[in-house]
Amino acid sequence: MKLNCDMGESFGSWVMGMDEQVMPFVDMANIACGFHASDPLTMDRTVKLALVSGVSIGAHPGYPDLLGFGRRDLQCSADELRALIVYQIAALDGICRVNGACIDYVKPHGALYNRMIADPATMAVVMQAVLDYAPRCPLVIMATPDAERFRAQAATLGLTLWFEAFSDRAYDDQGRLLSRSVPGAVHHSCEAIEQQVTQMINDGSVTSINGVRVPIQADTLCIHGDNPLALQVVQRLQFLRPGR
Amino acid sequence: MKLNCDMGESFGSWVMGMDEQVMPFVDMANIACGFHASDPLTMDRTVKLALVSGVSIGAHPGYPDLLGFGRRDLQCSADELRALIVYQIAALDGICRVNGACIDYVKPHGALYNRMIADPATMAVVMQAVLDYAPRCPLVIMATPDAERFRAQAATLGLTLWFEAFSDRAYDDQGRLLSRSVPGAVHHSCEAIEQQVTQMINDGSVTSINGVRVPIQADTLCIHGDNPLALQVVQRLQFLRPGR
Amino acid sequence: MKLNCDMGESFGSWVMGMDEQVMPFVDMANIACGFHASDPLTMDRTVKLALVSGVSIGAHPGYPDLLGFGRRDLQCSADELRALIVYQIAALDGICRVNGACIDYVKPHGALYNRMIADPATMAVVMQAVLDYAPRCPLVIMATPDAERFRAQAATLGLTLWFEAFSDRAYDDQGRLLSRSVPGAVHHSCEAIEQQVTQMINDGSVTSINGVRVPIQADTLCIHGDNPLALQVVQRLQFLRPGR
Amino acid sequence: MKLNCDMGESFGSWVMGMDEQVMPFVDMANIACGFHASDPLTMDRTVKLALVSGVSIGAHPGYPDLLGFGRRDLQCSADELRALIVYQIAALDGICRVNGACIDYVKPHGALYNRMIADPATMAVVMQAVLDYAPRCPLVIMATPDAERFRAQAATLGLTLWFEAFSDRAYDDQGRLLSRSVPGAVHHSCEAIEQQVTQMINDGSVTSINGVRVPIQADTLCIHGDNPLALQVVQRLQFLRPGR
Repeated sequence: MKLNCDMGESFGSWVMGMDEQVMPFVDMANIACGFHASDPLTMDRTVKLALVSGVSIGAHPGYPDLLGFGRRDLQCSADELRALIVYQIAALDGICRVNGACIDYVKPHGALYNRMIADPATMAVVMQAVLDYAPRCPLVIMATPDAERFRAQAATLGLTLWFEAFSDRAYDDQGRLLSRSVPGAVHHSCEAIEQQVTQMINDGSVTSINGVRVPIQADTLCIHGDNPLALQVVQRLQFLRPGR
Repeated sequence: MKLNCDMGESFGSWVMGMDEQVMPFVDMANIACGFHASDPLTMDRTVKLALVSGVSIGAHPGYPDLLGFGRRDLQCSADELRALIVYQIAALDGICRVNGACIDYVKPHGALYNRMIADPATMAVVMQAVLDYAPRCPLVIMATPDAERFRAQAATLGLTLWFEAFSDRAYDDQGRLLSRSVPGAVHHSCEAIEQQVTQMINDGSVTSINGVRVPIQADTLCIHGDNPLALQVVQRLQFLRPGR
Repeated sequence: MKLNCDMGESFGSWVMGMDEQVMPFVDMANIACGFHASDPLTMDRTVKLALVSGVSIGAHPGYPDLLGFGRRDLQCSADELRALIVYQIAALDGICRVNGACIDYVKPHGALYNRMIADPATMAVVMQAVLDYAPRCPLVIMATPDAERFRAQAATLGLTLWFEAFSDRAYDDQGRLLSRSVPGAVHHSCEAIEQQVTQMINDGSVTSINGVRVPIQADTLCIHGDNPLALQVVQRLQFLRPGR
Repeated sequence: MKLNCDMGESFGSWVMGMDEQVMPFVDMANIACGFHASDPLTMDRTVKLALVSGVSIGAHPGYPDLLGFGRRDLQCSADELRALIVYQIAALDGICRVNGACIDYVKPHGALYNRMIADPATMAVVMQAVLDYAPRCPLVIMATPDAERFRAQAATLGLTLWFEAFSDRAYDDQGRLLSRSVPGAVHHSCEAIEQQVTQMINDGSVTSINGVRVPIQADTLCIHGDNPLALQVVQRLQFLRPGR
């Protein structure tokens, strides 16, 4: 199971995450594209950092809301949403291209990611935007029990989906992430994170906040770079992935 | 001589220019890329509008300064400048690609354009950024008496330059644009604009603000879309360009 | 009945509204505070313009969303909402003070205005923010059939409310504004606007989109400055207000 | 000699500085006002933090350039500059007022601060803006050998000046700060900072980067909150200030 991590979330003089330390331990870098975080220079540096470590590069587009870090829902028309996704994907791809690379996948961020999972019309726009700009790039979406619905929708379009699970977020009984505003929504101990990851790898499941075992089929596992534990977690997880 | 016009300079709910009316009369649309003006949806609409009229599409990158409309100089490191140019060019190119097109040229905007002309180090960064992302795209720069210097610099790199003259801006005796802050810097009558254009086409020269004849060799002529006279001007200019 | 109009909604180089022409015909200028529109220089000019015409000045705070013009709902905590309202009110009041004036009232903008009407918790935050910064300033809210509830809430706090009706917006049968996304939500003829205003003044009612007569008790009438008809409308309305 | 420190420079989800730890050790908090850093909620929290520690609150206005953290020069007309300073001072003062306080002084930030020291016309605009909004608030400017010129200018207007020296920045032989782009411009050891501070207090002088003793008469000493050493420095400095 590949580890993906949000990267390049600094903005101007403000630093977020420990990209340099974490990068060597992950497989996929979801790089912010300037709308919810990042800026062109940060993107360029993060792309270079990923290339040095041989890490796959994913576009991580979000809503245009720096102040809210892309975590607040924002009403957009379908045309506006499609344009802002294409804009961000293409901008990062351009930064990749001048560095001799290209984007490998797309993973929407924050409130856009959540809305995409919750709202079929938004999912359709996101899928089409990815297909139109980068037809061979997989789209990373959340591994939920109703994954089959999304898989069928994507198959019709000829789009590849990668499903992801979360190492540091609590799940509800339906296999959905708890909102960050709910107490206990984010795991703040290495042990809790390692337990959740081990169970995902060995048993294909998570234990919900209510103690229910929920099956989760995931291709990749998300580590949050803004979680101060991220570095410790990725270092521990290396032992779980001997083949890497 | 081709007419180029700044387009797509609206921002969200704010409208600038008369893109729909002007587009059918020009040859090249310099489309803002979201840093000094425009937004993804405006860019998408402007690209579609250009394609309907068969107009060439140029990326029009500027400094990240919406409030100042990219007209204020902004200190950037070479790395930052390169990244912000690539970001903007690629974003517009992505919008073009999902519409079945691609960018045809690059023309920097406002203070970035002026600094590029005045500062060889900035010109070198701009040239390299264009080459790295879009090696076959010409870079549009100002037609000045010292054009040969830039032509030599570009030839070394394998970059094509297109030189442009301005229809509605006054020139100084060295063939440089007067700063917008100087009285008389912008022509506000159709007659003045038409006179300047006619002289450029027929005589390859402009008359400076001091009455001096200055030779100008131009490939393209810029019409400012935010000049309220732009529409009248482009309509008049059709008569000067019978072959179109 | 006093006429209020949104003013100072230009941003940098982008012009919106016809403030200079409209100002002499209105009684109250709702001046944007830089979050959904305007900037410090535009605010300063608009304040000076209002003072020349002897027009009351209201702070018109909105969500921090220039791209969406403050018309998109944005999740904010109570603390964040209170801080962003105080910030905007105080900033405009400061601009007023250096011009020898002060704000006379507060009227929230767009999605914040709508949420305040729809959500009692938001209304409570807005009321408290106004009271804390400007205890003598009335808060302008929408005249709806359930106005009594708001009046009671405000009376408890010692806050004055002014109720407003809209001249160019269609109402539903409950006396609420139709969303701008609904066809017919905005009146685009002077006749429709004049009819609605006349009925409000003479009969204290509006006719809903379904033809139902809905009573509306209003202290002030809103003219939208971004409606191209605004100027014609305010000029016509002078005849209806002989005492002015 | 009072210690002043830049505070409230976080922005949305991005944290900068260690305000909570540093606040108890300083006398004056220069609070960013949302243009180069900060946001309304951060300002509100920082004001509350200052009040808990009994620290004076200063408005710290800057150029509207989040990406550049207000450290890049930005051409502004006198009217624009005056409006953006008043806007920011008043916004922070409003946040203070709803917390039962008010601003105690004004200290411009970054490139605006530098331009004010270098350009008499800018200094005149800043002085007038402070006088117009907050006539009793001192303006903090840099202690340079030509302080008398500024003192005379301020006395004519009836404005109080406070002069500040810098604990962690290297000086040139004229007593001006070295640009941050020059190597050695920022002290990165506690020893260097403590030495500079001790010399200022005991001898009223600094040693320039070239080893020259330069007299500096300062009312207050600036600690940079974004310097990772800030906390250690303020803790050490307590021993130098027994009367506090």
